[in-house]
Formats: sequence, structure tokens, C-alpha cells
Amino acid sequence: MKDVAKLAGVSLGTVSKVINGIPVGESYRTRVQAAAKSLGYTVNSYARGLKTNRTNCVALVLPSLRHPFFASLADETIACLRERGKRCILMITNFDAAVERQSFVMVRQNKADGVIALTYSPDIEEEFDLPIVTIDRRFAPGLPCVSSDNYRGGQIAAQKLLELGCRRPLLFQISSDIPGEPHKRGAGFLDECAARGVDCASLVLRDSETEAGFYRYIDEHTAGAHADFDGVFCTSDWLAVRVRSHLETRGVRVPEDVQIIGYDGVVNYATKQYDCSTIVQPVAEMARTAVELLLSEERRAAGTDIRLPVRYAGCGTTKD
Amino acid sequence: MKDVAKLAGVSLGTVSKVINGIPVGESYRTRVQAAAKSLGYTVNSYARGLKTNRTNCVALVLPSLRHPFFASLADETIACLRERGKRCILMITNFDAAVERQSFVMVRQNKADGVIALTYSPDIEEEFDLPIVTIDRRFAPGLPCVSSDNYRGGQIAAQKLLELGCRRPLLFQISSDIPGEPHKRGAGFLDECAARGVDCASLVLRDSETEAGFYRYIDEHTAGAHADFDGVFCTSDWLAVRVRSHLETRGVRVPEDVQIIGYDGVVNYATKQYDCSTIVQPVAEMARTAVELLLSEERRAAGTDIRLPVRYAGCGTTKD
Repeated sequence: MKDVAKLAGVSLGTVSKVINGIPVGESYRTRVQAAAKSLGYTVNSYARGLKTNRTNCVALVLPSLRHPFFASLADETIACLRERGKRCILMITNFDAAVERQSFVMVRQNKADGVIALTYSPDIEEEFDLPIVTIDRRFAPGLPCVSSDNYRGGQIAAQKLLELGCRRPLLFQISSDIPGEPHKRGAGFLDECAARGVDCASLVLRDSETEAGFYRYIDEHTAGAHADFDGVFCTSDWLAVRVRSHLETRGVRVPEDVQIIGYDGVVNYATKQYDCSTIVQPVAEMARTAVELLLSEERRAAGTDIRLPVRYAGCGTTKD
Repeated sequence: MKDVAKLAGVSLGTVSKVINGIPVGESYRTRVQAAAKSLGYTVNSYARGLKTNRTNCVALVLPSLRHPFFASLADETIACLRERGKRCILMITNFDAAVERQSFVMVRQNKADGVIALTYSPDIEEEFDLPIVTIDRRFAPGLPCVSSDNYRGGQIAAQKLLELGCRRPLLFQISSDIPGEPHKRGAGFLDECAARGVDCASLVLRDSETEAGFYRYIDEHTAGAHADFDGVFCTSDWLAVRVRSHLETRGVRVPEDVQIIGYDGVVNYATKQYDCSTIVQPVAEMARTAVELLLSEERRAAGTDIRLPVRYAGCGTTKD
């Protein structure tokens, strides 16, 4: 950098401004860029890229830490950032869009180098020329979005239930008001059932509704220990756990009478097992991918939909 | 501040330095302090107190987010900080003392205003004139340490088990290599049993040992469906869950043959219940107390041991 300053005939501070993308007079910028080029400096990529030399802080925006999937995503993301010498400013939204907006303001004010966000808030009107990687839901067109392969996960759940003998599958989906990748879990399940010529019932409820709707469905479709359905794909593990529990209070046995597959696959801290048979999201890979994309100069070139492979794991609520 | 600068005959920057505790010439400091005093400014408390106007970032140091107690403590702490306009830099140690040291360096470099830390690392040699509040374990003498009333929690567990008919109580304690408040759970339990004239067996294992030692104890003290003990106090909920599960594989029924009480009382996200009968730590109050102490000018005057009340909650592993 000293060599660049000397060759360009400017101060070290001016060189620093140019490589960090801070406005300077056009003639200064041209001289610094020319000097840098002749010395092998890649000024343009610095100027356009992540402000790596600024704060070494990345803002991570999550709805809550009480959901084990979010906690484990935060744990992995913080570990990945740390390996790369970055700190993590963790912002918990509790579904409040104002917290997300703050994270963008931080980046603009150079209090953070970039944002990794998993949001359930409606799209925010912003200028999106910021280093942002989203998880599961995209803020704006063109931004990279990392998720597990939700559609494929739904397909795998259908394949498994049918292979394990289910003939009357049922989909229980909780659907956020905001569209996002997780919506595709149900579509994958329904499409796979249809492709195999199997009729499938489904109940899709919104976040804002309680799970009471699922219990009501169960009550209406069970009589004595008999259920109208013999396999349920729940779009999250916690719903699967609660559906299992409600079925059992009705005298329906899991997995003997009804098999259940959930989605998430976070290992329970106490039992060291999954809470139910599940489609496992690759949490560590999702965190690593989001961090690497955020810190990469080629973030925008990486494509917008990065879907990582999922796998099935049987754990107590299926007959395998 | 402008009035102080005018009266002292110094620049605004000098006043700012003095009230933020940044070194300036002694004559400047004296003049600013005199001017501030005559205008009713409390310069001394600013200078000694938290650097509230610096970064609005507080570093929170936790071992992991995978333990639900830590996740819920982080969630509550971030919410409390946010209410006060502060961001949270979350540092996950994975039991690595270097991460804790980094948090102190950040405060010294004015990248954070203070530290809230729950640590399992050995005492770190540091100059401790920093805004620090610890949880459960103290770094150094004189620093405030917030915890639940672990000793009382142990006493309550003993009272409950004895009231519920246990005559051969047993203590299973996991004990970190580093002394701290949680060690007192076992002491409270044993003291209360002794005070009531009841003999109590105990097994204390270190963090570094696996829970296999507890299983071995159970195997050696059960024959058929009979156990030598009829009540167990486990010093964490996850241990209680695992002990229950191991007893059941041996044919011992919980709570019919053996009653179990754990410690922590974090509500399971999936079941919305405690995982076992438990001593509930007041997580929200612990977070709030730590944040308020850290941001308070009277931090050091608040005393060093702040123990918050716990309560018992029955949930499936006791006969109540």
C-alpha cells in the first residue's frame, strides 16, 4: 500500500479510502487505481467487495434462539465467522422488522461488514447494494439465499412413508405469511405422492394460527384408536412431536398405527437423539455456505438459490 | 457539554475525552472537571463508569448455544440489551479461554462497552478494571456475579423428594473443574438431607468425564427392577433426562420406583413443558440483572454475589 501511495503521489490515507470504496476526488481515484494496477493490486475487487478491513463484525439476524434449529444455526455461524477472524453481532428480531432494518443501517454506518439474515418479515423497501446473504427467505431479487433442499426433503418424506407401508398419507404444513423456501416442503411431498399415484390429504395453517387446528383435524379424523390416515409429514420437528403426543392421547399408536416424519433434524441436547423421524437440514453446511458467500468477492455471481442436500433419519416415529 | 467547554476554555473534543476517560493533559482535565462540577455535570461517574456513548455494543460470552439454558439466556440478554439501545456481540467459547480474552481486548480497544460472561475457563490473568458482569462463575475478586440461588435450589430438591416419600436419596452431580456457584447445588442437597437426619449417597463426576460413570453407578445399584435408591437429584435437566432413560432400560419405573428432580427448568421448545421435574432458574431475571448491573454506574457497589430465587416445578419424574 505504501508503494501504491508513493507511485500515485498521494497519501496512504487516500489509498486506503480508494481500496475501501470511500469517495475521493476522481483524479485521485484514477491515479491510485493506475498505480495499484501496475503494482499488481486488485483495487477494483477491494472497492466492490466486502469491507473486510473495517469492523470485522458481521450481523446475524434470527427470529429467536429458543427454536433449537435457530440456536444451532447461530452456533455454527458464529464458529465459522470466528475461524475467519470475524465477530458476530447477533440480532434477535422476535418477528420485528425494525430489527432487520437496524442491521442494514449498521452496515451503512460501517458498524458491520455484512448481514446474514433469516427473516419472516415482509419485504423491506431498501437499496440492496449491501453485502447480504439470506437464509430460507430472500429480501430482494438477485440476493443469494441459502437453504436446505426443501422440495427434495418433502419428496424424500413421501418416498419413505410410502416405502414403510403408508397408504393414506397426510401433510400437516405450517406456512408463514411470507413466501420462502420452506413452503416447498409440502409441495415436494404432495408432488411425490401424486407421482406415485397415491391420494394425499393436507392441512396447511399459517404461523399466526395456533396448532389447535391440527388437533381439531386429528380429532375429526380419528375414532377410538382408528385414524383415517396412516402417515403424516409435519413440516417441522416440533409439530411432529406435538402431533405424536396428541395422537397418543387419542389412543392412536405411533408408529404402529400412524407413522410421522418431521423436518429440521436438530439433535436434542438432553437425549442426544432426534426428537422424531425427520428430514435433516445440513445446519453446519448452511452456516458455512452463508459465511463463505458473504465474505466472497463473487457473492452475486454465485447464483441466488443455493439449496443444500438433506437426508432422512429414522428415530422412533416410523417403523424402520 | 458545549457549556463545559466554553467555561473551561477548551475544545469540545477535550471535554469528550475527559468524560470518556481518555488521557489528556492534567491541567485540561482539572479545568474540565471544575467547569463540569460548577455546571452540575457528574464527570467523575462518567469517567469511571461504562463508556455508554462509545459503541453501544456489549459482548456476551457463552460456552455454546446448543444447551437450551445458554440459548435461552442469550435470547433474554439480547432482548434486555435491545430495550436499552445496545447491540450484542455474541462470542461462543466452546470452552476456549482465548475467546474470553478477546472479549476483554474488545473492551480495551473500545469495540465493546462491556462484557457479560459465563465461563468455564480457568481464571484469566487480567487487569480487571473493565466493565464486566459474570454469570455463575467469577473471574476475579470483587466482580459482580449473577446466579440463581444454587444452594437453596439443592435444599428445595431435598425437601421435595423427602416430602414425596423418598427415604434413600441420591445426588448425581456434574462438577466443572472450575469452582463456581453451580457447585453449591449438591451442597444444598446434602446439607438439607443431613438436617433432616436422612442418609444420602452421592456421586460427583467432572465435566471431563462422560456420564458413563452415572450409568455404571445405576447398573451396580439396581437389580432386576429394584434400585438401592428411591430419589435422585441431578444437577442438570439433561442429566435427569438421561438418568431417567437409563433407569427405564433397566426396568426401573420413573416416578413409581425412583423419583428424579433436575436443575435448570428451560421449557422444551417442542413439548412446551419442562423435560422433567426440576428446579427452575429465573433466566429472564438473571439476564435483566446482569444487563442492569453492567450498565449501572454503581456496578461495584452492588455487591459481588447476586443470587436470584429459584422454584420447584413438578413435571413427570416425581409423584406430585
